Amino acid sequence: MVTRLSHYFLRTLREDPADAEVTSHRLLVRAGYIRRQAPGIFAWLPLGLKVKAKIEAIIRDEMANAGAYEVHFPALVPRDPYEQSGRWETYGNGIFRLKDRKDADYLLAPTHEELFTLLVKDLYSSYKDLPLAIYQIQDKYRDEARPRAGLLRGREFTMKDAYSFDYTDEGLDASYQRQRDAYERIFQRLGLEYVIVAADNGLMGGARSEEFLHPTAIGEDTFVRSAGGYAANVEAFTTVAPEAIPFDDLAEPVIFDSPNTPTIATLVAHANAHLDAPAPGIAGPATEGAAEWTAAHTLKNVVLALTHLDGTREVVIVGIPGDRDIDEKRVEVAFAPAAVEQATEADFEKNPLLVKGYIGPWSPTGAVFGEESATGIRYLLDPRVVDGTAWITGANADEKHVHTLVAGRDFFGDGFIEVADVREGDPAPDGSGPVELARGMEIGHVFQLGRFFADVLGLKVLDENGKLVTVTMGSYGIGVTRILANIAELNNDEKGLIWPASVAPFDVHVVAAGKDPVVFEVAEQLSADLEAAGLDVLFDDRPKVSPGVKFGDAELVGVPQLIVVGRAAAEGHVELWDRRSGARDTVPVADAVQRLRSR
Amino acid sequence: MVTRLSHYFLRTLREDPADAEVTSHRLLVRAGYIRRQAPGIFAWLPLGLKVKAKIEAIIRDEMANAGAYEVHFPALVPRDPYEQSGRWETYGNGIFRLKDRKDADYLLAPTHEELFTLLVKDLYSSYKDLPLAIYQIQDKYRDEARPRAGLLRGREFTMKDAYSFDYTDEGLDASYQRQRDAYERIFQRLGLEYVIVAADNGLMGGARSEEFLHPTAIGEDTFVRSAGGYAANVEAFTTVAPEAIPFDDLAEPVIFDSPNTPTIATLVAHANAHLDAPAPGIAGPATEGAAEWTAAHTLKNVVLALTHLDGTREVVIVGIPGDRDIDEKRVEVAFAPAAVEQATEADFEKNPLLVKGYIGPWSPTGAVFGEESATGIRYLLDPRVVDGTAWITGANADEKHVHTLVAGRDFFGDGFIEVADVREGDPAPDGSGPVELARGMEIGHVFQLGRFFADVLGLKVLDENGKLVTVTMGSYGIGVTRILANIAELNNDEKGLIWPASVAPFDVHVVAAGKDPVVFEVAEQLSADLEAAGLDVLFDDRPKVSPGVKFGDAELVGVPQLIVVGRAAAEGHVELWDRRSGARDTVPVADAVQRLRSR
Repeated sequence: MVTRLSHYFLRTLREDPADAEVTSHRLLVRAGYIRRQAPGIFAWLPLGLKVKAKIEAIIRDEMANAGAYEVHFPALVPRDPYEQSGRWETYGNGIFRLKDRKDADYLLAPTHEELFTLLVKDLYSSYKDLPLAIYQIQDKYRDEARPRAGLLRGREFTMKDAYSFDYTDEGLDASYQRQRDAYERIFQRLGLEYVIVAADNGLMGGARSEEFLHPTAIGEDTFVRSAGGYAANVEAFTTVAPEAIPFDDLAEPVIFDSPNTPTIATLVAHANAHLDAPAPGIAGPATEGAAEWTAAHTLKNVVLALTHLDGTREVVIVGIPGDRDIDEKRVEVAFAPAAVEQATEADFEKNPLLVKGYIGPWSPTGAVFGEESATGIRYLLDPRVVDGTAWITGANADEKHVHTLVAGRDFFGDGFIEVADVREGDPAPDGSGPVELARGMEIGHVFQLGRFFADVLGLKVLDENGKLVTVTMGSYGIGVTRILANIAELNNDEKGLIWPASVAPFDVHVVAAGKDPVVFEVAEQLSADLEAAGLDVLFDDRPKVSPGVKFGDAELVGVPQLIVVGRAAAEGHVELWDRRSGARDTVPVADAVQRLRSR
Repeated sequence: MVTRLSHYFLRTLREDPADAEVTSHRLLVRAGYIRRQAPGIFAWLPLGLKVKAKIEAIIRDEMANAGAYEVHFPALVPRDPYEQSGRWETYGNGIFRLKDRKDADYLLAPTHEELFTLLVKDLYSSYKDLPLAIYQIQDKYRDEARPRAGLLRGREFTMKDAYSFDYTDEGLDASYQRQRDAYERIFQRLGLEYVIVAADNGLMGGARSEEFLHPTAIGEDTFVRSAGGYAANVEAFTTVAPEAIPFDDLAEPVIFDSPNTPTIATLVAHANAHLDAPAPGIAGPATEGAAEWTAAHTLKNVVLALTHLDGTREVVIVGIPGDRDIDEKRVEVAFAPAAVEQATEADFEKNPLLVKGYIGPWSPTGAVFGEESATGIRYLLDPRVVDGTAWITGANADEKHVHTLVAGRDFFGDGFIEVADVREGDPAPDGSGPVELARGMEIGHVFQLGRFFADVLGLKVLDENGKLVTVTMGSYGIGVTRILANIAELNNDEKGLIWPASVAPFDVHVVAAGKDPVVFEVAEQLSADLEAAGLDVLFDDRPKVSPGVKFGDAELVGVPQLIVVGRAAAEGHVELWDRRSGARDTVPVADAVQRLRSR
């Protein structure tokens, strides 16, 4: 059935929505695809729903090709399975919780690992039933602190989430690869550029974890990549640690006065003004051969406070080279599931041995940091602080610093931690050369969950030998509504949207441009012929709307192929417009259908 | 792609689920269509999802034919629009409410009238934009007190809800008719018998309201119908009130002693033992010519307590003929939105003028009931209590009743009310004869909302004369998951489900029955041929499962057409089974595809 604009539920808007921060949000609202209902919560108008359905159809098709079967879980789910997995707690205030009339706890599921696990446990019991892959396309909920950017970070959003079930690690690897391949095909069919990056494997302890990032300046994720093919999310990037350095020949640490040096920069300036130039070999690789003191000679000690899941608060200190900053996302991932913040005045008051502004791991009377030290505070080091590196750092006394303080001799960490920022030029951990930084938007995530949920929820099957073995799982997510926004973000110009044919709401937009009855007659017949030829037609048959307004709407709405039926209709000609290239082509009406079909 | 049972996510169960009260619940769980997640909340397994998708496709098709466009609202919606319409309050504890991290109120929408209204208000402003019909197919939520019967009364369920928008009453009538016609086509295509019954038009004050009931013994609704074509829900049934009777010749009321007459039956027995037989014309039509006193001569006064929306409590008295009972659903609808219950001891204590067990509207000293009476209690009468009817009822004094108490002379109501039960043989209000009672399940509801929501939320458009007029709306709902259950309820036998072809999860179920490799080869090729012919094929290719188990599963799952590839495959023959009729037909393999397609 031809869709007629005279009746269709569509109203384009002249004004950008006041809250639109990004292009996709602005255009999807103005062109009548979505409409805001609450922060991060949208209604889908007919055009938007059609595009969404096309994306979902492509995903369903590739899921079927990958041997995955569709199921559908409720959005409203009981607390108990999430209690068992510990996520009822760890979600914190990031989820919507509610009670029913009997005061039982429920949540609006942000993800369904627990229920998938329990469903398979419910129905399956033998290795013969595996491998299994099942998925759903479902509206999910997250109580985002700052819902923003339209569909890109919503509180109600649509996801495809798939799970695989195997009883061997090799099986999981094969299932993982099948889904990873399916994701590549999906993004290729959607015309959406992607980079597969190594991702943090989180708390579940699974082996492989990769994100599909769509490179875009508005991306919320930073990732690194090397010319040699390495790619990783910054959270998953691992620092190349230098070799340890022999330190037998190094001088003893020297305490020096350092008044008014509250920052690394003032400390470095002070050192260059008052100390001898650094001796050769005084520090690690980053400073080798330096003629004067630099930030890389200093060791910055950052005092953090963790709140563990059980509510206990722990002060920890992180030591990183002074030329680096702590990366907020890396620190969050490194300490998860604990929450991290800067230590407060109260934390310092509880640790009177720390001399604020001058804290350091060492003092002439012994170690200051470390579980075995006087303070008992856990001390974690950047991987660059290897044994034998020598540093300027606080002497833990008022207005005093120390230099030639040697790691592995004068101070010791309780372990290493990846929290320093990643920089352009840092070496990729796989030896493939220096990395560059880029912004990306996560559009998919494939992840070997391993046996975490199966262990917690008791999903076991009998193997070939009649032995109960715990099932190993993979998790594979795609953000459907986020993908839609990314496609819109990538496919537009100053006039409006330009959909790729694979997800366009209609195949062709026929515009009756003019007042002459013959224009409407020809456009009417042509629309019917196009529809009969299997094309989905949007026909702008509005009788009293000017051609200019109709063209403006057509360009905003962004159907990729247009046919303008205008004055030339009387002579049997119509104009084909290609929305993307702008190319216009006058053809006989009789040829229009064939021309359109061949595109 | 042929779906292979060796890999499909399906496990049939031998045992009925413990909580299954109805056939559809029992079979849908056993055959692997759905799985319980919480009370009234289900997960959809692949088979169930396929049937649901087919029902939705039929609905979408008929919505398109009716000129309605699909949209999709969020399930998680803000309080404000529901506050404006008053429904945030009137829903009581029947909905799920929750707060976000900023403490803002939300609900899980049980229905979206407010948001549809606001969306149209947002985008439309002229009569030229109307009529409009838009709909969604969406998961909805109700915090049912007693979720039960599987999908028939769930807490998370799928509905199609459509709304029409017009600016004239005639327009609304036409929109209403279009949707009503679409509903008839939908139920016909689904093979689901239905009765269209007049329904209560609720609080919105709309004009027409009709329910589509599927007649079934497990139905929760009682409806009445006459041979002459009248059909109504009991809540919407209106009593045929008799004509008023002249009472000039009637004797005065007579008080008589009536100890130990706590019930109507004991009161009637007492009257027949101690009073003269009723004089001719002593009461209304129901008792005309009666030789002795009957329950229909008595007037029962039922004391109820209403709780109004603002929390105030009001005692009201309902007077109905003693041979009738109060119908719980009718009384609920009659007093909505107030909540109704029997008056409590506390209510009686607050109304000391009522002599419990002997209450009546009259006493020798004046009126006892009525807003103008000594008690001030509102008194509402059954429509049969017309002026001139004479009654036995309480004399409002201990152990005393009164007879020949005449309505319109000795006592007066403050109005009439429809709360008495409806009986087989009661006259239909349209004069089409006596009614019979039947049970039905509501599967659809078409309803003229009128201007209620548009008024409250300010949805107006400019009419032809440039005058702002309030839009009038219709609401049209179909319970998608409930329909699925009803179809299952209607289409099964002792062996399992038998789907109608229009919604069957697969077109044909091919069973490889035997161990001979040729069986599997033939079945494999035949499945591929059927699929190539455009049929959706479920192929039971499980290598080590006995034919008996395979047949049992096939009968339970209920695909309507089966092809059994057995021993005869070697001679080039297969067996076609019709699941519903049980007919079996041996045909050459070469003919099987053609035979199947022609069915």
